[in-house]
Amino acid sequence: MREIAIIGIGQTQVAEHWDKSLRELAGEAIFTAMLDAQRERVDGLFIGNMLSGVLARQENIGALIADWVGLKNVEAIKVEAACGSGAAALRAAIMAVGSGEMESAIAAGVEKMTETKGTETTAALATAADADYEAEQGLSFVAINALIMQRYMYEYGWKHTDFAPFSINAHANAAHNPYARLQEPISTKAYQQARMIADPINLLDASPIGDGAAAVVIVPADRLRTGSNSSNHPWIKIDGSASATDALAVHDRRDPLWLSAAEKSVHKAYNQAGVGPQDIDVFELHDAFSIMSALSLEACGFAERGQGPRMGLEGEITPTGCVPIATRGGLKARGHPVGATGLYQIIEVAQQLRGEAGVTQVPNARIGMAQNIGGSGATIITHILKIR
Amino acid sequence: MREIAIIGIGQTQVAEHWDKSLRELAGEAIFTAMLDAQRERVDGLFIGNMLSGVLARQENIGALIADWVGLKNVEAIKVEAACGSGAAALRAAIMAVGSGEMESAIAAGVEKMTETKGTETTAALATAADADYEAEQGLSFVAINALIMQRYMYEYGWKHTDFAPFSINAHANAAHNPYARLQEPISTKAYQQARMIADPINLLDASPIGDGAAAVVIVPADRLRTGSNSSNHPWIKIDGSASATDALAVHDRRDPLWLSAAEKSVHKAYNQAGVGPQDIDVFELHDAFSIMSALSLEACGFAERGQGPRMGLEGEITPTGCVPIATRGGLKARGHPVGATGLYQIIEVAQQLRGEAGVTQVPNARIGMAQNIGGSGATIITHILKIR
Repeated sequence: MREIAIIGIGQTQVAEHWDKSLRELAGEAIFTAMLDAQRERVDGLFIGNMLSGVLARQENIGALIADWVGLKNVEAIKVEAACGSGAAALRAAIMAVGSGEMESAIAAGVEKMTETKGTETTAALATAADADYEAEQGLSFVAINALIMQRYMYEYGWKHTDFAPFSINAHANAAHNPYARLQEPISTKAYQQARMIADPINLLDASPIGDGAAAVVIVPADRLRTGSNSSNHPWIKIDGSASATDALAVHDRRDPLWLSAAEKSVHKAYNQAGVGPQDIDVFELHDAFSIMSALSLEACGFAERGQGPRMGLEGEITPTGCVPIATRGGLKARGHPVGATGLYQIIEVAQQLRGEAGVTQVPNARIGMAQNIGGSGATIITHILKIR
Repeated sequence: MREIAIIGIGQTQVAEHWDKSLRELAGEAIFTAMLDAQRERVDGLFIGNMLSGVLARQENIGALIADWVGLKNVEAIKVEAACGSGAAALRAAIMAVGSGEMESAIAAGVEKMTETKGTETTAALATAADADYEAEQGLSFVAINALIMQRYMYEYGWKHTDFAPFSINAHANAAHNPYARLQEPISTKAYQQARMIADPINLLDASPIGDGAAAVVIVPADRLRTGSNSSNHPWIKIDGSASATDALAVHDRRDPLWLSAAEKSVHKAYNQAGVGPQDIDVFELHDAFSIMSALSLEACGFAERGQGPRMGLEGEITPTGCVPIATRGGLKARGHPVGATGLYQIIEVAQQLRGEAGVTQVPNARIGMAQNIGGSGATIITHILKIR
């Protein structure tokens, strides 16, 4: 497959965008990305979205958004893999351009979640779990993660407060990201005293939902080598892209405390990029809940099994640590507009590699990784980006 | 891009499968296709589905179905483009294998539509239209097509009964297809007297919904040339694959009586395959409503603008005519399990090219075309298949 480069990025703030429709939100991110790439036209549009059908009663949003942004007649589809939809859309776009079927494409994630009632949105999020065996029992998505965290604490002897650094780091970083939903630092005390949601997950273990859109423009890298890149930004090479799955229901997995789909996809991505965990300068992981940060660090080879929280406690996850995560706020504080999240992660890694991350810039970041999870570990997609 | 071949096909009957869940239905088609291809494993799974979120409260069905059919850890996503989801999933699979990222893949469409109340299903189908500007006005999906048909009859001077041959041909062919939902021939009188749904569309102009699943196994064609095909069937080469879009809302289109996305995608597919309309031996078009048959024949170059119905009236659309359509019953009589339809069409063309279409076999069929439509013309995907 041809090498692929990201030449443009665009995002909206994650917020309660009651004044903007789904197409308007998507358009805002797409126009920003096209402007950033200095492109007026692409050959394909890949939309990552999870809930437009259930919450907005709108499917077929590939065609809808293509028309809205003026990409008349362009090929356009929606890709869905629950909260992993964003990275799944990027991966579909990569294969489309990589195959030679297209010379350029936009992958955009968009989600509108705050206009519906909370109970409705919670029920909609449960569609990421197994409807017949999990949601059927009344398990919400946070409850499923609570069961995993409960078991993890029991197996490995961690206390709830040991997970505090994940949330504190995310909030501290989001304070410097104008696109983040929650731009306020939090203290250990606030973390410990936060309202319980599903024991042991409290409000500050859980990422907030939100409305938002994020988009990237990709082209074959060889086109850029020959000098046709008109953008003012350095371009980013996608050195690794891989996806793997596991059973949708947690009880069907061999080990509920091990993200085997993360292990599989990251292993493939490391091989493609010719790197290992020691080479990753920044890692935007899928911290939908703090337990997921621990599990991701372990499955990707940054921590020993059961030792994920140690990374936070030892200060290794901050922008100056050895494995900076959630450097722009992560899902926890930038916010989690589910189908768009995977593309926010890609953009945040790109900002780090471009040296545009401001106060939370990771020094000399050359290689970055983003990992997006659909369901409680069912679909996991890993991308490794490198600055040219 | 590498050439792609279809080496296995599988389908369930389109029916009211109240005893089978979404995953079971999909599994049945996928297992049949794998058996047909003599393969136990593929590298990727691409699911075409429109309504699992809205009607079954289940998203993330890529991972769900991959696990169910024993494709542990395989890459899997859902692709959605309303009623065009099936062909869109195939096209995503083609680009994945064509790019070299995978050596084999399954594209499967699945839909369960009959377990919910009729009003609920009708509302769900309206998500294929523009929620803010069409559904918002109370327009159901059939009503949108009725407006198009009304205008078409007015512009070109056709009477309702002139569309009868489309439905009569579809039903006559479905009578010989054990996978069809409605296996009964109909008469012109029955067509004329059928209950009105949305004037001028009556019950026999409209395709029935249904539960169903259809799947194909694809591999790079060069693998087969070197002799590794263990299947007993001749394999089918995918010579053309293209997708294009138009505005989602009919009122936003330049001409509501012209399927510009069909024209764009078929033109590209013809070029890829090096053929024209005169070379197509069998054409499985998207006859969700009889008006769509007329519009598709025109946009694809088989009939002059406004003259689609003439093809039926002159007997050209039957299996022995010059443009056989709906040879296994089409959407009209095989049934329209929306997200699966595009793959039923592919399988039906493959059956014709393999010479396995029985009573409705098109003599000496060598080149076949399938065209799948999402929305009332918004997303249109064309595939051209050739027997090796």
